[in-house]
Amino acid sequence: MYPYPVVVKAVWFNESTGEICWINTKKLPCEEEVTCSSDPVRVAVAIKDMEIRGAPAIGVAAALTIGAYALKVAGRGVEEFTSLVNSAIHTLLKTRPTAYNLFYALTKMQRTLREAVNKTSDTYTIARKLVETALEVYREDVEANLKIGEYGAELVPDNATILTHCNAGALATSAYGTALGVIRVAWYRGKRIRVIATETRPLLQGARLTVYELVKEGIPVTLVTDNAVGLLMRKEKIDLVVVGADRVTRDGYVVNKIGTYMIALAASRHEVPFYVAAPTSTIDLEHTIDQVVIEERDPGEVKYIMGQPITVETVDVYNYAFDVTDPDLVSAIITELGVIKPPYNETIPRTMSKKHS
Amino acid sequence: MYPYPVVVKAVWFNESTGEICWINTKKLPCEEEVTCSSDPVRVAVAIKDMEIRGAPAIGVAAALTIGAYALKVAGRGVEEFTSLVNSAIHTLLKTRPTAYNLFYALTKMQRTLREAVNKTSDTYTIARKLVETALEVYREDVEANLKIGEYGAELVPDNATILTHCNAGALATSAYGTALGVIRVAWYRGKRIRVIATETRPLLQGARLTVYELVKEGIPVTLVTDNAVGLLMRKEKIDLVVVGADRVTRDGYVVNKIGTYMIALAASRHEVPFYVAAPTSTIDLEHTIDQVVIEERDPGEVKYIMGQPITVETVDVYNYAFDVTDPDLVSAIITELGVIKPPYNETIPRTMSKKHS
Repeated sequence: MYPYPVVVKAVWFNESTGEICWINTKKLPCEEEVTCSSDPVRVAVAIKDMEIRGAPAIGVAAALTIGAYALKVAGRGVEEFTSLVNSAIHTLLKTRPTAYNLFYALTKMQRTLREAVNKTSDTYTIARKLVETALEVYREDVEANLKIGEYGAELVPDNATILTHCNAGALATSAYGTALGVIRVAWYRGKRIRVIATETRPLLQGARLTVYELVKEGIPVTLVTDNAVGLLMRKEKIDLVVVGADRVTRDGYVVNKIGTYMIALAASRHEVPFYVAAPTSTIDLEHTIDQVVIEERDPGEVKYIMGQPITVETVDVYNYAFDVTDPDLVSAIITELGVIKPPYNETIPRTMSKKHS
Repeated sequence: MYPYPVVVKAVWFNESTGEICWINTKKLPCEEEVTCSSDPVRVAVAIKDMEIRGAPAIGVAAALTIGAYALKVAGRGVEEFTSLVNSAIHTLLKTRPTAYNLFYALTKMQRTLREAVNKTSDTYTIARKLVETALEVYREDVEANLKIGEYGAELVPDNATILTHCNAGALATSAYGTALGVIRVAWYRGKRIRVIATETRPLLQGARLTVYELVKEGIPVTLVTDNAVGLLMRKEKIDLVVVGADRVTRDGYVVNKIGTYMIALAASRHEVPFYVAAPTSTIDLEHTIDQVVIEERDPGEVKYIMGQPITVETVDVYNYAFDVTDPDLVSAIITELGVIKPPYNETIPRTMSKKHS
């Protein structure tokens, strides 16, 4: 069905049980634990606690959950059904504030619900419509990753050393990944590449997930601490950086995992191209960067690693989950509609108008 | 004896037993384990394994160890004594390649040995001379830290938020610390300050040691991951950065704990002053930056945290312990001889000539 192997998956829909299933990324690489559910509250916990993480995966999971839940509550009166599904949408909307794909996907589900309710009061039909839209969101993301991979692979020279941060891989999307999509397509097209993965404190998605994905597929990878990128750019050959995004504003500010900005600064200093790979479902045309909420998470994520205390129990912590990279540091944004280059305040709206036309 | 309290100590000389003692910084903050020894091989292990770490502390510990060992082998014939002490010096010289203070201190001990042997063949007298020189290296470092603290405190505005990396504190020196010396003197002179400490992967000296020192002394401190500095400079008020150094070249390249360079890049972007606090024993007038060996350490330091595996067992790792910050990113170097400002290729040699004159 797809041109490249799908070795690792984060979330999927189980057609026979009508449930969403996901791999608990918190337990990787030690344990491959799969959970299935049609309970929006359970999935909301999974998203908040980062069993499911990565902006596209969060969006897809939210859509699939609404589909699964709609199937479960179909059969009730249309008013109760609508109210239950809407309340499930609201539960999921409140899980995490920064990833734009969550709003993108749930807005789509809301629109489908509204339109379906206008046409019929048969809740089975409406539920089926919701599942279809959710699967559309899912497939749209797979397709977007493939396209991103193909556009992005063009930017990867042979023998390239590619640095990536956090995990913008299969485990952050519906398949292949955004940044790792670029890396995978380059690899499967026969380019000799090697990857440098930053561990990505506090939750170590680079060390745990990116390394896991790449080792599993035999793509050469070297792990480094987040703070080593500056020296590596000075000492080792790094040809390009490619990262994902949790949100991109219309003028090209990139909100992504904490640490991205410092990597972009180092890349700029050493004239290493810095690429952001993201589907257009990540692009937020409405809000300015100052309106975007940067999520603050539990201080315990910093004070404990794998359950072990690393510092004085009582110390204060800042634990912002994301940072902001300015447009001038971003060489290009690789989307499923093509590679967007500066000036972003012109090129991003122009690209997005293609999508909606 | 000293104008500010000495709450935490890394290394000291026990006059009554003739041994060097040190706190095992690897076990902090969980355990305060003190070891005493006069065995250079034991201390070499302590330095390699980072029970004793921080460039000035390494230099002081090496000098004190030679003193302690000389006392222990005094009584042998002068030739055997000289050969044993010289071989101890070589053992210690080989422990770590980057910190310049180690070479500075051991060169001093070598010179004392040579001069003493020229004057007398009484090994007790020679040993006592070596202990005196070692204690001089020790006291010189305490004095340097105090002076650095005093010069540096002038640069700290009231109500300042000060970011520091790794541990350039009492636990990295003979007392007070270099970067933390600046912070301590500012604090004890009544300035209202708060500190942001980066955890400093892989060995977490910021989370374990800097936080421990500051909490113990009641100085307000907030812990962050290394990769959060960029966002913090954008979002929170940070008035200055102050870090230590393992080596400073004559043209102002600063070799310091991995991650320093990326902090300097962020500071430069946000026009936050970036200060390096280091005694002149850290300044290497002889080697160019390309001649300085950047130590690579065991991959296990990255793959395991507090004994827990964080990634796929087999993955490759780069684990450079230090990085290089270019002179143009350094606002000033705070030494015991005063605050050195650019252009460093002129001002560093000029300052150092004061020392030797």
